[in-house]
Amino acid sequence: MSARPAVVLLSGGLDSATVLALAVARGFRCYALSVRYGQRHSVELDAAMRVAARLGAYEHRIMAVDLAGIGGSALTDSRLAVPESPTTGIPITYVPARNTLFLSLALGWAEVLCSEDIFVGVNAVDYSGYPDCRPEFIESFEHLARLATKAGVGGAKLTVHAPLIHMSKAQIVRTGLELGIDYGITVSCYQADSQGRACGKCDSCRIRAAGFADAGVPDPTAYA
Amino acid sequence: MSARPAVVLLSGGLDSATVLALAVARGFRCYALSVRYGQRHSVELDAAMRVAARLGAYEHRIMAVDLAGIGGSALTDSRLAVPESPTTGIPITYVPARNTLFLSLALGWAEVLCSEDIFVGVNAVDYSGYPDCRPEFIESFEHLARLATKAGVGGAKLTVHAPLIHMSKAQIVRTGLELGIDYGITVSCYQADSQGRACGKCDSCRIRAAGFADAGVPDPTAYA
Repeated sequence: MSARPAVVLLSGGLDSATVLALAVARGFRCYALSVRYGQRHSVELDAAMRVAARLGAYEHRIMAVDLAGIGGSALTDSRLAVPESPTTGIPITYVPARNTLFLSLALGWAEVLCSEDIFVGVNAVDYSGYPDCRPEFIESFEHLARLATKAGVGGAKLTVHAPLIHMSKAQIVRTGLELGIDYGITVSCYQADSQGRACGKCDSCRIRAAGFADAGVPDPTAYA
Repeated sequence: MSARPAVVLLSGGLDSATVLALAVARGFRCYALSVRYGQRHSVELDAAMRVAARLGAYEHRIMAVDLAGIGGSALTDSRLAVPESPTTGIPITYVPARNTLFLSLALGWAEVLCSEDIFVGVNAVDYSGYPDCRPEFIESFEHLARLATKAGVGGAKLTVHAPLIHMSKAQIVRTGLELGIDYGITVSCYQADSQGRACGKCDSCRIRAAGFADAGVPDPTAYA
């Protein structure tokens, strides 16, 4: 077991599946981490389990965090509706401090595993306008991580890999297809039904569908 | 309700109680946040509830995070013993990425509350050698927070207040006593018994007892 360990944040959507495939292809022993944070549905965690197994994660854990208590997002507060047409600014589906929290959990696991590599599927191009998807956020977290940990104090250079950050959705799709991903097993929709079928209307569905169209490949998504 | 809202991380120990009292004294409307993260015992959460009520928190929430799954610390892994004599280096009671995680949760709640102020009781003097208690860590998190959030993008200057960071334990004790805190209701021990009585032997107990001694005041701690 000589491969370097890496923690890979895995939501079960298109982007994080592509990141996992990239990390595996680069020879990392991948510890996939999903978070149950009060999402409206659990089909994305089901998708994460399928993706972890299919793409060769070494281990997959689902950590539970109770974010629903603080509310403030349409993704965790069932009283807020998911918008079905484009909005301007930072949308209501933004979950407060979500990526900060997920990266913190990944950092804790990385430290226990003696891993210096965290992979995350954030994307600053075809994204939904979330502040914690920007390159300066990732760089800032990397800086924090080196100060926050036992390993960092010992001189370890923890790296937060965000290989998709400057890619268009079409480039991400093409990258994943070259790595053999069946995107039909991933779920990106903010309000998928209990069978994991996508609504085709929310921001996430629209961006994903446009990605397949722009890449000139068939869209394997199951729509409701 | 014109007071500025602030999120105050509250463990139920001596330091965070003092921070809550300071934030209340400064006129903030305090939202106390405690985290259930797989601690060995829940008496510190009981203490946090007592402290929140007694010191005038406006609201108190306990968020649950499943950290026990990743192990690696004597505080969350019952197979690891809490040391009862001084150790060198970063001790086994260090919880991987704990303060990063707690501050992330505080940041999420602060964002929902439209609060620009987070208070945390870290201390870089009489501390246990944890990397995430140092001033450079707090500054780095503050930088991250401004990049991570909707409010930060909008120009808000989120501040992480760590008023104890350069104080000795004796100074903290004197500060709290001036604010009228009854430290008898706080629990600092890493392995308190089910009635919240301290062991008197672990790092945390030793540092706390020395603080009362150095301050020249009686130690109100209940010992087993």
